[in-house]
Amino acid sequence: MIDQQLPCVIGVDLGGTNIHAGVVDINNKVLGRRFVPTLVEEGPKRVIERLISNIRELKEECRHGSIKGIGIGAAGIIDMIRGAVITSPNFPGWQDVPLKEIIFREFDIPTALDNDANAAAFGEFWAGAGRGSSSMIGLTLGTGVGGGIILNGHLWHGSVGMAGEIGHMTIVPDGLKCPCGNRGCLESYASATAIVNRTKSRISRHQQSNILSLTDAESLTSEKVYQAAVGGDELAKDILYETGVYLGLAIGALVNILDPEIFIIGGGASKAWDFFSHSMKEEISKRTLFKSAGSVKVVPAELGNDAGLIGAGGIIAQSLNFN
Amino acid sequence: MIDQQLPCVIGVDLGGTNIHAGVVDINNKVLGRRFVPTLVEEGPKRVIERLISNIRELKEECRHGSIKGIGIGAAGIIDMIRGAVITSPNFPGWQDVPLKEIIFREFDIPTALDNDANAAAFGEFWAGAGRGSSSMIGLTLGTGVGGGIILNGHLWHGSVGMAGEIGHMTIVPDGLKCPCGNRGCLESYASATAIVNRTKSRISRHQQSNILSLTDAESLTSEKVYQAAVGGDELAKDILYETGVYLGLAIGALVNILDPEIFIIGGGASKAWDFFSHSMKEEISKRTLFKSAGSVKVVPAELGNDAGLIGAGGIIAQSLNFN
Repeated sequence: MIDQQLPCVIGVDLGGTNIHAGVVDINNKVLGRRFVPTLVEEGPKRVIERLISNIRELKEECRHGSIKGIGIGAAGIIDMIRGAVITSPNFPGWQDVPLKEIIFREFDIPTALDNDANAAAFGEFWAGAGRGSSSMIGLTLGTGVGGGIILNGHLWHGSVGMAGEIGHMTIVPDGLKCPCGNRGCLESYASATAIVNRTKSRISRHQQSNILSLTDAESLTSEKVYQAAVGGDELAKDILYETGVYLGLAIGALVNILDPEIFIIGGGASKAWDFFSHSMKEEISKRTLFKSAGSVKVVPAELGNDAGLIGAGGIIAQSLNFN
Repeated sequence: MIDQQLPCVIGVDLGGTNIHAGVVDINNKVLGRRFVPTLVEEGPKRVIERLISNIRELKEECRHGSIKGIGIGAAGIIDMIRGAVITSPNFPGWQDVPLKEIIFREFDIPTALDNDANAAAFGEFWAGAGRGSSSMIGLTLGTGVGGGIILNGHLWHGSVGMAGEIGHMTIVPDGLKCPCGNRGCLESYASATAIVNRTKSRISRHQQSNILSLTDAESLTSEKVYQAAVGGDELAKDILYETGVYLGLAIGALVNILDPEIFIIGGGASKAWDFFSHSMKEEISKRTLFKSAGSVKVVPAELGNDAGLIGAGGIIAQSLNFN
């Protein structure tokens, strides 16, 4: 049983691979958690049943039954007004699923739905590296590049809920083709996927590297590229250095546009911080006007895989004025 | 004499060439105005004296003496906390001039200082093409490209007052050198200056054009390029078409980042709207995710040269809760 003294919420990180749910108190401590595979291939109905049963179990473990709200961060395009998952590359078959309403009807407590990148950014803002700031941009370097923008202490969703799609800002006008249909998106240069693709393409052009002694090309991951860099592999170091330049290009533009207090870089590929942060910061200085160049902070995320869960909890907690 | 019935403010557009000041009522009507040359070459002291005497004359023309505030938009980098002009390419010799305090001490009424691009954007928001919106980005295509961002009905200044420097977002990583020191800034591709430079460079590469029958190369302006396009000149049309592509590239990124309701394009070069808006909108659609692509509005400014004056008035009126 969870022995909570403070009001609590349930935060859920609903990803294409795993459902990660937890009880979070208003001091943003995680008091208990569930981690189960999503099994998207079973379709929306079964996934939602699994989501509900995990929330129910967490709720029942709470002694005093004082769960005040449920927040969900889902990997997809969200209709913020209706609380629906409009579509998602991670959830094949999901179309316009009114998830917020479904969960609210099931538990009859205030429910919030946002996208996973916003939830992760809000997590870092509420409980991680962004604590104490009032304006922050979070970037998550994973399969894609997720973004979340916090201004005056609140997530900025934009006029149709599409703000923060920083992974799809163009950084190279005639650049690489992105699955979104555009060319030169940040995501095509700085995601974990981009790191892997660039590494493969360089190796296929016979650049020297011992990366393929660590793994075969098929199962290459950004983690392996990072490990190779740690081992001194020059190609791996190059790839990560370049990733920093691309990130710096985007962050530099974001500084000129929004001048936030702090940028926080999370997601799997952010583990390679020591190999990309130097070139990233150099590029940011080149790209920004003098006054911002001196003040902007860019730091790694602190919450790791918990950012989405905690942030989803934080979003509903904030909307209930708990924090 | 100005016969004002409603509370009024004085708005000032303090530019490198002219001081444009006016009495603006809370319904954003301009009731009287002064338009004098700035004569920057005389140095800050004389310019400020001229500014003060123009404000004084406007104030004295108001019958009931009910000027509630003074707003100034100045062409420079502004310290928003101290209300000082830190530096400005348009005001040589100005360094850290505490203009807000100087004006406040002189007239003893609430005073606001912001930069000219923010003031112009706020003018369009309060009284022009942005009326009724709640999030808006204004771009001013002049000597440079100015930007102003309005979110939830307020100018977004950022953490050190440097937000909205959209003219300096990188759109071409290894692009043209910008006076700011960076390469590939939007300003180097879409300002009136950029239009002139690109035209000259194309003509020097012997591209056919009758532009030089309208003017000599030395006195070429973006206005002349526009007139040549109206007259059917293919090179002029090309240059303006490309300007639209570059603008669309930047606006597309801004949509993905901030998803504002509306973009408003003003400044001298925006007169050529019919020649750049088509390629601009096409580029925006290519660069944005489907949901925003369908909803974003991009329209020309409505207030012309009055945007800065009215906006400066609007900024102080808003801070006094008049609107």
